[in-house]
Amino acid sequence: MPKITGFDVFDVRFPTSLSADGSDAMNHDADYSAAYIVLRTDDPALYGCGFTFTIGRGNDICAAAIELRARPLIGQDAEEICGDLGGIYRNLKRDSQLRWLGPDKGVEHLALGAVMNAVWDLAARQAGKPLWQLLSDMTPEQIVDATDLSYLSDALTREEALGLLTRLAPTRDQRIRQLTENGYPCYTTSAGWLGYSDEKLRRLCQEAVDQGYRHIKLKVGASLEEDIRRLAIAREVIGPDGNLMIDANQVWDVPQAIDWVKQLSEFNPMWIEEPTSPDDVLGHAEIRRAVQPIGVATGEHGMNRVLFKQLFQAAAIDYCQLDACRLASVNEVLAVQLMAAKFGIPVCPHAGGVGLCELVQHLSIFDFIAVSGDLTGRVTEFVDHLHEHFVDPCIVKDGAYVMPATPGYSAELKEQTLQEYAFPYGTYWAGTDTGQAEQAWRAGNQAGRVAFASARIETQA
Amino acid sequence: MPKITGFDVFDVRFPTSLSADGSDAMNHDADYSAAYIVLRTDDPALYGCGFTFTIGRGNDICAAAIELRARPLIGQDAEEICGDLGGIYRNLKRDSQLRWLGPDKGVEHLALGAVMNAVWDLAARQAGKPLWQLLSDMTPEQIVDATDLSYLSDALTREEALGLLTRLAPTRDQRIRQLTENGYPCYTTSAGWLGYSDEKLRRLCQEAVDQGYRHIKLKVGASLEEDIRRLAIAREVIGPDGNLMIDANQVWDVPQAIDWVKQLSEFNPMWIEEPTSPDDVLGHAEIRRAVQPIGVATGEHGMNRVLFKQLFQAAAIDYCQLDACRLASVNEVLAVQLMAAKFGIPVCPHAGGVGLCELVQHLSIFDFIAVSGDLTGRVTEFVDHLHEHFVDPCIVKDGAYVMPATPGYSAELKEQTLQEYAFPYGTYWAGTDTGQAEQAWRAGNQAGRVAFASARIETQA
Repeated sequence: MPKITGFDVFDVRFPTSLSADGSDAMNHDADYSAAYIVLRTDDPALYGCGFTFTIGRGNDICAAAIELRARPLIGQDAEEICGDLGGIYRNLKRDSQLRWLGPDKGVEHLALGAVMNAVWDLAARQAGKPLWQLLSDMTPEQIVDATDLSYLSDALTREEALGLLTRLAPTRDQRIRQLTENGYPCYTTSAGWLGYSDEKLRRLCQEAVDQGYRHIKLKVGASLEEDIRRLAIAREVIGPDGNLMIDANQVWDVPQAIDWVKQLSEFNPMWIEEPTSPDDVLGHAEIRRAVQPIGVATGEHGMNRVLFKQLFQAAAIDYCQLDACRLASVNEVLAVQLMAAKFGIPVCPHAGGVGLCELVQHLSIFDFIAVSGDLTGRVTEFVDHLHEHFVDPCIVKDGAYVMPATPGYSAELKEQTLQEYAFPYGTYWAGTDTGQAEQAWRAGNQAGRVAFASARIETQA
Repeated sequence: MPKITGFDVFDVRFPTSLSADGSDAMNHDADYSAAYIVLRTDDPALYGCGFTFTIGRGNDICAAAIELRARPLIGQDAEEICGDLGGIYRNLKRDSQLRWLGPDKGVEHLALGAVMNAVWDLAARQAGKPLWQLLSDMTPEQIVDATDLSYLSDALTREEALGLLTRLAPTRDQRIRQLTENGYPCYTTSAGWLGYSDEKLRRLCQEAVDQGYRHIKLKVGASLEEDIRRLAIAREVIGPDGNLMIDANQVWDVPQAIDWVKQLSEFNPMWIEEPTSPDDVLGHAEIRRAVQPIGVATGEHGMNRVLFKQLFQAAAIDYCQLDACRLASVNEVLAVQLMAAKFGIPVCPHAGGVGLCELVQHLSIFDFIAVSGDLTGRVTEFVDHLHEHFVDPCIVKDGAYVMPATPGYSAELKEQTLQEYAFPYGTYWAGTDTGQAEQAWRAGNQAGRVAFASARIETQA
């Protein structure tokens, strides 16, 4: 019986800000990053990989929080953990001192997500199944036992959750066959970053259409005039029947969101994504009432299941864009998927960044197989960046995710990537001004030990 | 013109779990802690102290986040910063990469709060005034310029904020005189921790009454039977006219909260505090409707101004218990105080822990002088723990905070405290099993560098 003997934690950052990949009205210089953990057992062939996604600075803080979250796993029996994935989640989450830093939000929650992503990867590897299949082979009771239902009973009871899963259990196989044949539908954001020129935008939209996509998403919110010009280009390329989504990345107050979106309504967007603060349930509800029939979508910054509960209760959104790393892994994702099914809201997960596509394909596939049983209005994000760094990258064909077949959660980064992009000492960063400045700061100020001792930090000047 | 030349960051922890101080239904082993920063200038006599409050593990994560948040201050002109306290706040907050870790919540927000607390302390020291007076001497325009109004315009416009402050500006002096004479009313939580015996509870309640308190708060939520027994004792001691508050520290789901609180209604509590998840605006609104006339109070885990906006909009609370460290310092506190004034909700700040009393006395005093102009229903928490570690501790007389007179934000810890309680190398911790185990872990695993390199962490066994 293998035991968990230790773990490695890496601060991995990619210099995506150099190419304006990922630029939007809020995030103009994102360096896509992963705070990454590999759980080791005394069987070298059995390990689990997980991460949370960030966009640069602060990835080190997440890595430090992951180290703290993962410590209690050392010495535990891997099979016991994999046999009670709800139990280990509750044990890790129970730490009341760490809870104070949230609860269930921000860095400590991202870190719990990364650690539990690694635990689920370990469990799927141990079972010899891709994660979606591990989940699909579980009974309704087993799934509910692994689901974090705390604080949700006014919206979803355990019995209701069981009922939703039991209803679809007998027909799971037919939906597995359907997805095996057609894949899970996705859309692309690769075309629409704000930093791209009009020519690049037009070319990328055309390429997306040529590749079989029927949905295209554009970033908006920096300049109304530019939004109108760019949306006109995109609408022209995809035609009147194509689905055009727009994404403001939280730049507006509520009244401003309503005003701005109305002025883009001529382009018939399918949804406006993140029109305002991700925490503003009542604000999203007000925007939704005002901009109908344009749908409201949010969730990539949806901090936890309690926020999503309220978004459902307040009829604030038309599309639920949960995030595989911001929620505390599969245990909390299941809760949101089940609530969405009860309230009849399609789940269209956030992806992109680094590795999010690899994770959410499993979640969407399972959602269709066992929770929603429906593809209507469902389309999962896909961004064609950075997949080459993964051992088991997602595959998209004809606008759909192909069913993953390799055991695990598709979360493993290549060894060479770690050596190259670990910040700031990896071979890539060591050759940059940014990496060298960070190394000098740490060497000069012992900043690396600031959290752990009483370090004095002085300017170099 | 002094420049900011550097800063010190300390992970300070007090072993309060040993005495069951701070024990409640959620937090049974709190070690009150401060992630503490001292900003230095090239004038040794001019510095600023700030912190965020945590309850133990993870205080190191906050310290690391503080280090990252404070770096951009190095080299800046101290007078310029102190002359534009809204500008420096927005500059620090603007970091879009760190924003991803929240936004405006969890560790990165706690860290921003600590750094800005130090900046406000610096500004008050530079002006030679206690913080409440620095604020009270500002014009309505200056106050609004320092206030974080982002995402709030659907509830409070800049013009409304100005109007609230302008209305009370001519009469500020009379309220200053009133507080100088009587102090700002407070209540005590020192009596009611769950870990205390019935005898200790009875004795502490009696002592509180003898000291002039007319409000007493008890922790509830672990056992209904025990709650009834303990509330009967407290009610007996303080008499039918004393104010009894109860605090569940988030242990209930919404339906359970309603049921439990109704069973305690015979003791006529003034408020039920934190009945459920601090994120659950709609849940608090539902509980409030169900348990009236018992009031609903929350806010010590209120993550940001957007949450408080919704609590006001949804008529979810009767008392607003903002926290001086969980909100991003004075800049965000002002926003919540102004909204509370507009919606007519009394602000009764959370305090206790370590140093929170020292901070909130300034905030409550300013609230009365310039924002609410009203003491009705207002009472600020006071817990008589750990004040001996502060250079300028708060003083409470006859159930009221005495107006602080020393320049600054009363946030400075004594040098000896830092040497003794820095974790895990301070003289106190170095002599404990906990401190020695942590030192061994860090030495053996280089965990201190996990966030900064590619560190392998293995079990010692």
